[in-house]
Amino acid sequence: MPSYKAPVDDVHFLLNDVFHFDNYNNLRGFSDATADVREAIIGEAAKFAEEVLQPLNRVGDVEGCTRHDDGRVTTPAGFKDAFRQLADGGWLGLVAPAEYGGQGLPATLGQVVGEFLISSNMAFSMYSGLTQGAMAALLVHGTDEQKKLFVPRMVEGKWAGTMNLTEPHCGTDLGLLRTKAVKQADASYKISGTKIFISGGDQDLTENIVHLVLARIEGAPAGVRGISLFVVPKVLVNPDGSLGAKNGVSCGSIEHKMGIHGNSTCVMNYDNATGWLVGEENKGLNAMFVMMNEARLGVGVQGLAQSEVAYQNAVAYAKDRLQGRALTGPKAPDKAADPIIVHPDVRRTLMTIRAFNEAARAMMLWMSLKGDVAHRSGDAREREAADDMMGLLTPVLKGVLTDVGFANTVSAQQMYGGHGYIAEQGMEQFVRDARIAMIYEGANGIQALDLVGRKLPRDGGRAVTAYFAEVGAFVKDNASNEAMKPVVGPLATALGHLQQATQWLIKNGAATPDNAGAAATDYMYLFGLVTLGYMWGLMVKAAQTRLATAASDHLKTKLVTGKFFAERMLPETALHLARIQAGAGTVMELPADAF
Amino acid sequence: MPSYKAPVDDVHFLLNDVFHFDNYNNLRGFSDATADVREAIIGEAAKFAEEVLQPLNRVGDVEGCTRHDDGRVTTPAGFKDAFRQLADGGWLGLVAPAEYGGQGLPATLGQVVGEFLISSNMAFSMYSGLTQGAMAALLVHGTDEQKKLFVPRMVEGKWAGTMNLTEPHCGTDLGLLRTKAVKQADASYKISGTKIFISGGDQDLTENIVHLVLARIEGAPAGVRGISLFVVPKVLVNPDGSLGAKNGVSCGSIEHKMGIHGNSTCVMNYDNATGWLVGEENKGLNAMFVMMNEARLGVGVQGLAQSEVAYQNAVAYAKDRLQGRALTGPKAPDKAADPIIVHPDVRRTLMTIRAFNEAARAMMLWMSLKGDVAHRSGDAREREAADDMMGLLTPVLKGVLTDVGFANTVSAQQMYGGHGYIAEQGMEQFVRDARIAMIYEGANGIQALDLVGRKLPRDGGRAVTAYFAEVGAFVKDNASNEAMKPVVGPLATALGHLQQATQWLIKNGAATPDNAGAAATDYMYLFGLVTLGYMWGLMVKAAQTRLATAASDHLKTKLVTGKFFAERMLPETALHLARIQAGAGTVMELPADAF
Repeated sequence: MPSYKAPVDDVHFLLNDVFHFDNYNNLRGFSDATADVREAIIGEAAKFAEEVLQPLNRVGDVEGCTRHDDGRVTTPAGFKDAFRQLADGGWLGLVAPAEYGGQGLPATLGQVVGEFLISSNMAFSMYSGLTQGAMAALLVHGTDEQKKLFVPRMVEGKWAGTMNLTEPHCGTDLGLLRTKAVKQADASYKISGTKIFISGGDQDLTENIVHLVLARIEGAPAGVRGISLFVVPKVLVNPDGSLGAKNGVSCGSIEHKMGIHGNSTCVMNYDNATGWLVGEENKGLNAMFVMMNEARLGVGVQGLAQSEVAYQNAVAYAKDRLQGRALTGPKAPDKAADPIIVHPDVRRTLMTIRAFNEAARAMMLWMSLKGDVAHRSGDAREREAADDMMGLLTPVLKGVLTDVGFANTVSAQQMYGGHGYIAEQGMEQFVRDARIAMIYEGANGIQALDLVGRKLPRDGGRAVTAYFAEVGAFVKDNASNEAMKPVVGPLATALGHLQQATQWLIKNGAATPDNAGAAATDYMYLFGLVTLGYMWGLMVKAAQTRLATAASDHLKTKLVTGKFFAERMLPETALHLARIQAGAGTVMELPADAF
Repeated sequence: MPSYKAPVDDVHFLLNDVFHFDNYNNLRGFSDATADVREAIIGEAAKFAEEVLQPLNRVGDVEGCTRHDDGRVTTPAGFKDAFRQLADGGWLGLVAPAEYGGQGLPATLGQVVGEFLISSNMAFSMYSGLTQGAMAALLVHGTDEQKKLFVPRMVEGKWAGTMNLTEPHCGTDLGLLRTKAVKQADASYKISGTKIFISGGDQDLTENIVHLVLARIEGAPAGVRGISLFVVPKVLVNPDGSLGAKNGVSCGSIEHKMGIHGNSTCVMNYDNATGWLVGEENKGLNAMFVMMNEARLGVGVQGLAQSEVAYQNAVAYAKDRLQGRALTGPKAPDKAADPIIVHPDVRRTLMTIRAFNEAARAMMLWMSLKGDVAHRSGDAREREAADDMMGLLTPVLKGVLTDVGFANTVSAQQMYGGHGYIAEQGMEQFVRDARIAMIYEGANGIQALDLVGRKLPRDGGRAVTAYFAEVGAFVKDNASNEAMKPVVGPLATALGHLQQATQWLIKNGAATPDNAGAAATDYMYLFGLVTLGYMWGLMVKAAQTRLATAASDHLKTKLVTGKFFAERMLPETALHLARIQAGAGTVMELPADAF
């Protein structure tokens, strides 16, 4: 059975030494998050994830969710109790404003906790993750009445939230959606249609579910400009928050899917369900984007989180499993064979996963801090700059962390040999669970197009210009630092590749859009590699600074792992550049019939 | 529901135009395989795979195999009937010698048929694949009596075969195995021990099962030099072939595993089971290697075969699914959206899979022909050269085709968006089924070590020298051919990288073995890429030759797909070279405790 230990030391190193969390004390909520408070919160979150959620991970996979004949949906044994503990522990309201019952702490802390929850039990964590996403959307676009009615009860975990976009014939292309909203005399709407792939669409964890639903108001324009967002509770709600009659929404069936069995993925039928507009008419996509951007970050973290837990278990197995002898002579001569961690190919695999995980975690926190600045700074220019960077990097984080995170779960499973293929070992569950993260919240190909087609050219390339300035300055400042050379040298090369690719896209993508489309995924990986390389630069520098005054085995590993990343993983940028510069010609040359 | 169409045209192009099958008429069995015979056999195999096996693929996944309370194991509905049809169609004896009831046809034709069977139903195909492997081992190492007793009944499909190596504590490191054999007065042995992960270990398809079992004779030396191979039938066999009493072997349980549910993966308990020695005492590993090499090729083909069927379904979906508009303007203006095959990122994905599949199929047939030469040529030097190349390339084929084949099933699943994650669509089954091929018959890390540590230095590097000569000659002969330049130019560069890497290994691997270990997987990929690039060279050349005299849309795609491979996939060799040359230093630097 797999186990999990939250990477608490690593998080403190990142918050304290790499990103200087205490420097952000001017932002709302940060002064409450003192080092002691952080230590307590992170420690408690680790304990909850390790002791309560992790033991339920395989239970959730084996048992799955059930839709009963009477339409009720039940979650796996133990989930309801765990959700109660999650709510009682205050975890659902960690980041929510105090006026709605939350603790108003930095979103960055929420992201730290999020990683632990996902590593320990991804299917379970989706119930809380989507609830927090729904809160975020209501807090930005809801009326005061909606905020007061819904958010405090979601903070308490009495009600959960969901996100209803996809329909059978439309996922990526939301302009095609058909769910219909008809305005009523009392300013409510009657919603009818079918939504599919609704995570936590129904469950027995909470007494009510707050569905956020995209639909088209009768007579609205075709395409995405005619889509509005509605809040549709499972059970109708009286103005005082007490529950009324059942609403016209029900779970038609639960999907049989590859993984995340512990989360109920529902077909939701809306049949004259009563809903209320969130935000403006026909501006539903804007409103939903608050939730989608939050969700995209969360899904990116899923890639990291599954990679981390799979890595930990692969390490444990590699230290335990005796098979063969080290190439340099027996390392455990008293045993029948050496533990497989002596073998260079096993080491190479583990180092590859580790070098990704640590940099991905840094990227997650770096971006979370930008998010906190964007939402909480009093300085408009600071907010804009942070928001630019968030916008630019969200598709990179989502696409790269989930693709590589999935590949890492596969590599970690591989360390187990045949045992990794056996369900009881739990490694194959990580693979099946991690797989969805590459697909939902915008399949990764869509993330790449978002990066190349929207985020890159936006505001005359302001975001990418700022990105180049920041990473370029780091490279320049550290170019003559001998100790930094193993990382900064390859980073400079990789940054150069990204700049060349960007120039190429500017020159060749606008006139011939297929060039941008054919380059998109490689450009996203290239961007991800440079960003992860930059994170290694920051981490190695911080580790060296600390090591100058204090011995630390943990920090010494950073120097080696950073060098490994620079030596073996960063050089991949050249390949992506070559592919980008190959253009769309050969990609598009065959007629569709030839496939 | 997925579908499958065997790539018949592609196979004929490869056999006729690329590899000039008719030039091998001097080899035993080839003159019987005239163009007409091949056409008939390949057509019938395609039909059987498409119509009989493919419809059972999902049934097998959903239903799985069952061990009943009385110890009987049953396979999914329809499997027994399909196995009967397979045997009656003569498919089990296609390659077996006529004197044992087979048709004695070239193994290359068997490989063609094998791909079709695996694409249509991988779990099912393992029952026949292992039976053929067991036949091959008995034909090489068995006594005349054993051959006469077992092989004809396996050809008829009355009995099946299995391969018993792994024990709970030993997979890769067979020297640790404990299953015990005690010699009896009648020259038989009593075998006792537990074997795990035994594919088709028990089933209801055949009236008997011929287990080939590795065990240690009482008093034998420790390690791999004390292992012998035994034939242990499930039901004891009288000298006339009639069945006697049940033998002391039984299935203790069936594993719950990630995929290939239609194949019974058994824990096999040997309790004083009666067995007979195959080959010499303590030389069991040599004897089993016949079966293992056969199995490694078969497993490599599994990677290709799953990639192929996943590709076909991804293409069908991409032509059918309407979502978004082409970047260059609507392609289906009469519809609500364009089929997603218009999008460059979808094309890029499909081209990547396709470019691999077609080259991998060529590699499979190229190697099968070498295998036929090695076994059937009258010329000792020809046999030796062919056997060298087979030995060198077997780990490459197994490792690269299964790793990339798996990655391709994931990419193909990705084309379906959320629908790809849903079991009913069948795409996630391809991923789960393909995953095992990276693990069994020697995990891919072991293949890489076999390549670098054994196959490369063997006989003073004779095989790799011959390989460089062959590919180098092709590059040289076509360097000035303008039409070949898009492929031959990048191939020359890639070959140069492989030669540099080989030189580096010779210089740095022997003195510091960890350098070889740390380089092994990258070297395997580098070797695979060059070989697939060479295959593209041969295919493009053959296509150009044919196109000079006859129009063919199928052959025109070869030129484009070959260019795509050369432009976007071959450049990956530089990355592998860089990693190899980075050496083992950083890989091995951290103490094991630091992980």
